[in-house]
Amino acid sequence: MAEIKFKLVETIGTISESNKGWVKELNLISWNERAPKYDLRDWAPDHVKMGKGITLSKDELIVLRDILNQMEI
Amino acid sequence: MAEIKFKLVETIGTISESNKGWVKELNLISWNERAPKYDLRDWAPDHVKMGKGITLSKDELIVLRDILNQMEI
Repeated sequence: MAEIKFKLVETIGTISESNKGWVKELNLISWNERAPKYDLRDWAPDHVKMGKGITLSKDELIVLRDILNQMEI
Repeated sequence: MAEIKFKLVETIGTISESNKGWVKELNLISWNERAPKYDLRDWAPDHVKMGKGITLSKDELIVLRDILNQMEI
């Protein structure tokens, strides 16, 4: 498998941490030297391994925020 | 690969749609007949194929909402 180059530009927030030390974070990440995208993902301690996740554009993040604000949670 | 059973309990909101008809949605999904979880994921039209995504607990969704509300977006 081709290596994926990424650069963690900014950690915006930590959403949770498992008892094994994996964290779910919202980050700004540049993949393969492209323009950075928002990224919601699980990470091993110190970001040495990445888990499942999803990238989001700024517009998608705004829609998601509005959806969450309309939920009764 | 073992088949993954899932039941789409509720579509909470649609975050975006690509020009190929794939949608990014926030759903409540029951995986393998377990208790439903929040799920942020890309889907092909009519949910026939699932793309990358991430599951979130209610507590994680609340933290994510609060993070998004603090961002200047």
